[in-house]
Amino acid sequence: MASKPSIPKGTRDFSPAEVAKRHYIIATIKSNFEKFGFQPIETPSFENSETLMGKYGEEGDRLIFKILNSGDYLAKADAALLQNKESNKLTSSISEKALRYDLTVPFARYVVQHQSEIEFPFKRYQIQPVWRADRPQKGRFREFFQCDADVVGSKSLWQEVELVQLYDSVFTQLGLEGVTIKINNRKILAGIAEVIGAQDKLIDFTVALDKLDKIGEDGVKKEMIEKGIEESAIEKVQPLFHFSGSILEKMDQLSTLLAESQEGMKGVAELQFICDNVTNLGLNKAILDLDVTLARGLNYYTGAIFEVAAPKTVAMGSIGGGGRYDDLTGIFGLKDMSGVGISFGLDRIYLVLDELNLFPETVTSTSKALFINYGEKEAFYSMQAIIKLRSYGIKVELYPDKAKVGKQFQHADKRGISYAVIVGESEMNEGKFALKNLNSGEQVLVNFEELKAALE
Amino acid sequence: MASKPSIPKGTRDFSPAEVAKRHYIIATIKSNFEKFGFQPIETPSFENSETLMGKYGEEGDRLIFKILNSGDYLAKADAALLQNKESNKLTSSISEKALRYDLTVPFARYVVQHQSEIEFPFKRYQIQPVWRADRPQKGRFREFFQCDADVVGSKSLWQEVELVQLYDSVFTQLGLEGVTIKINNRKILAGIAEVIGAQDKLIDFTVALDKLDKIGEDGVKKEMIEKGIEESAIEKVQPLFHFSGSILEKMDQLSTLLAESQEGMKGVAELQFICDNVTNLGLNKAILDLDVTLARGLNYYTGAIFEVAAPKTVAMGSIGGGGRYDDLTGIFGLKDMSGVGISFGLDRIYLVLDELNLFPETVTSTSKALFINYGEKEAFYSMQAIIKLRSYGIKVELYPDKAKVGKQFQHADKRGISYAVIVGESEMNEGKFALKNLNSGEQVLVNFEELKAALE
Repeated sequence: MASKPSIPKGTRDFSPAEVAKRHYIIATIKSNFEKFGFQPIETPSFENSETLMGKYGEEGDRLIFKILNSGDYLAKADAALLQNKESNKLTSSISEKALRYDLTVPFARYVVQHQSEIEFPFKRYQIQPVWRADRPQKGRFREFFQCDADVVGSKSLWQEVELVQLYDSVFTQLGLEGVTIKINNRKILAGIAEVIGAQDKLIDFTVALDKLDKIGEDGVKKEMIEKGIEESAIEKVQPLFHFSGSILEKMDQLSTLLAESQEGMKGVAELQFICDNVTNLGLNKAILDLDVTLARGLNYYTGAIFEVAAPKTVAMGSIGGGGRYDDLTGIFGLKDMSGVGISFGLDRIYLVLDELNLFPETVTSTSKALFINYGEKEAFYSMQAIIKLRSYGIKVELYPDKAKVGKQFQHADKRGISYAVIVGESEMNEGKFALKNLNSGEQVLVNFEELKAALE
Repeated sequence: MASKPSIPKGTRDFSPAEVAKRHYIIATIKSNFEKFGFQPIETPSFENSETLMGKYGEEGDRLIFKILNSGDYLAKADAALLQNKESNKLTSSISEKALRYDLTVPFARYVVQHQSEIEFPFKRYQIQPVWRADRPQKGRFREFFQCDADVVGSKSLWQEVELVQLYDSVFTQLGLEGVTIKINNRKILAGIAEVIGAQDKLIDFTVALDKLDKIGEDGVKKEMIEKGIEESAIEKVQPLFHFSGSILEKMDQLSTLLAESQEGMKGVAELQFICDNVTNLGLNKAILDLDVTLARGLNYYTGAIFEVAAPKTVAMGSIGGGGRYDDLTGIFGLKDMSGVGISFGLDRIYLVLDELNLFPETVTSTSKALFINYGEKEAFYSMQAIIKLRSYGIKVELYPDKAKVGKQFQHADKRGISYAVIVGESEMNEGKFALKNLNSGEQVLVNFEELKAALE
């Protein structure tokens, strides 16, 4: 291979500095998941194709990475399909496995497969990579991590309350101010559809309404009419064009608006429980807001819908989302298993923290000190101290070669290591160490206990 | 899908208890890697096929999982290959990517690709899954984690010394006694081949010698002769049949034996440096031993060869291995980049710790207490305490539904949760909590501070 090697488009190498920052976010999410009683599971990177195919719509099927069967994979393939190059029809006969596309379907598969071992309600979290053959673009990758927490086996709305608190807890711990947790409810959307008398126009309606800030009331109404929504219908939901105030005030307006829709009022009641309790129990840094245009995964969610917006100072969009789905495991034959869950967008959270300079300086895997190597005897003396320091959990290392001292200092500098420890003849004779602060240039002669104290 | 779903053979689901134990091992390895100055990188799960193919021999190529190209993958495929169903020849035209087979080749690719950003010597660690289309069997999976630490860019033997210490440090921290770190050197093997005058018979020789314990000296010699090794040659290495004593004594015997082989003596000198320094600096629980039959990855390693044997009380074989390879990155066009590294076998270490009951009881992600749900008011009162407890990092949860109390206690029991917190009318009135130890059955009435202290 003559040319410089590369990696497939849409994938990434992560450098030590990047891994350290990513792990900081993951560790924060993980510790909060566990604080809230969620337990980790892990599922295989690839599933049987039949587990995944048909679960994400036609577009999803196309974006699933398929794994070629091992061995003589063409042996049993249909000769006519091969001859006519019918890629689509051939796939299932030459590929039995596929990389997971998300963590939700594998989770549903896990619950059904292990139902006899699982104690319900089952609160699980899962932090693993997923793969999508999407066209790569800024912030969209072909391999990325999902961080999901879901509960299955209970319809209690306390779980929605706790999931809002969980978002708040994670983002508070990450030092991220101004995060908005937007909430809506599938039943409220159904109620709106009922009021406007157009179930099939619901998406057009919410998409248009979502543009209120940008194109104004007249613009939105114009778009709605263009999409075929009756003017009289728009009139009925007029309050949504001036929907404002606190979340509890908004709830009041919705109650009036949806009074005639039974399902809509059920959504209002659910939302009321969640908002009341979240408000009364209090949040730290996040803000809960009602957003009736929120319709993500409409065909999927049956109750609460969540989406988390990054602080307004950062142009990033959603950094998390989730909701309730009343029939998570039905696709695998296990009925009546309600689930509710949320997800954290690791890559976007990373970009937000990076832009706002919110990664703590301590987030690094770099050694605390580099011992300068002056030769075999000095290195042995250094190694004795290094072993002891490491036994106290202090990250230190020896420059492996007896190189020029300047080169060794430069190495420490480039690695972002703050201290150099210098051991020469005189230090060895005295049983001491010269400790040099590479930022200030200050150098002191210390014994082992002092060295340990300085590096701890 | 009517039948119960399943996962591809050779892959595994991990339950919460299993994930907690696996993460305990990974966290221990990771913290030691960092204490020793190694820094994490992560590479994509799939690489361009040309990066992987041809790097692991013919057998390896066969075991690499290939990913089918997206879209109309047959469009450009050769019609004749399709018609003749030539699976092997077709692969490269319908599959451009493949799942990584190990972490070493991706690391070499990373080093070459990012050479201008890397500060050498580069100490990296990497803990990620790899995939092999191997026939699954006990302890062998198609998806498994590798935990590798390597240094590239320095030939210093201090690194071999430190890698032995790193093994010792990890296994000591895991509480595993009786681990043997076996060491050999490629140059010693070359020396032996020189002395027996049969370079091409070296593997036959070491394989036979390795059976000394099982089939005795006569059996081994018989096998060697059958393999075509001259009797006179076997005579020359007679001391290897009574090779015993301390590692330093063994070194002496080797010096005599290999006195006439220049390369052999170079190997002896290298080994001497490593053994002397390891011995003088001391190990905790692991034992370093010289094993001249150790020949793993013979075509790959150029200096030290390591293999870690599980304690003799467990029938497990190797739980780690590694060595020095003088031309890691040559395959990608970057010459003269010596590397040395070791690997930990996560799955086997797991089995060993499990068999010896060495997982600490604290290794669990389970909540400390379950708050019993008596209804909305009680749940709200409980949630107030739960939020505060979580803010102190204590894992607690509310049973989400107002179910029968017996069912809730049973839930705590099945989940392995040690405490239940009971809040009824009287507790609310008094601002207290009934804390029940589910192991002893003891129940006490406590205020919040006492509750926190008990659960901390």
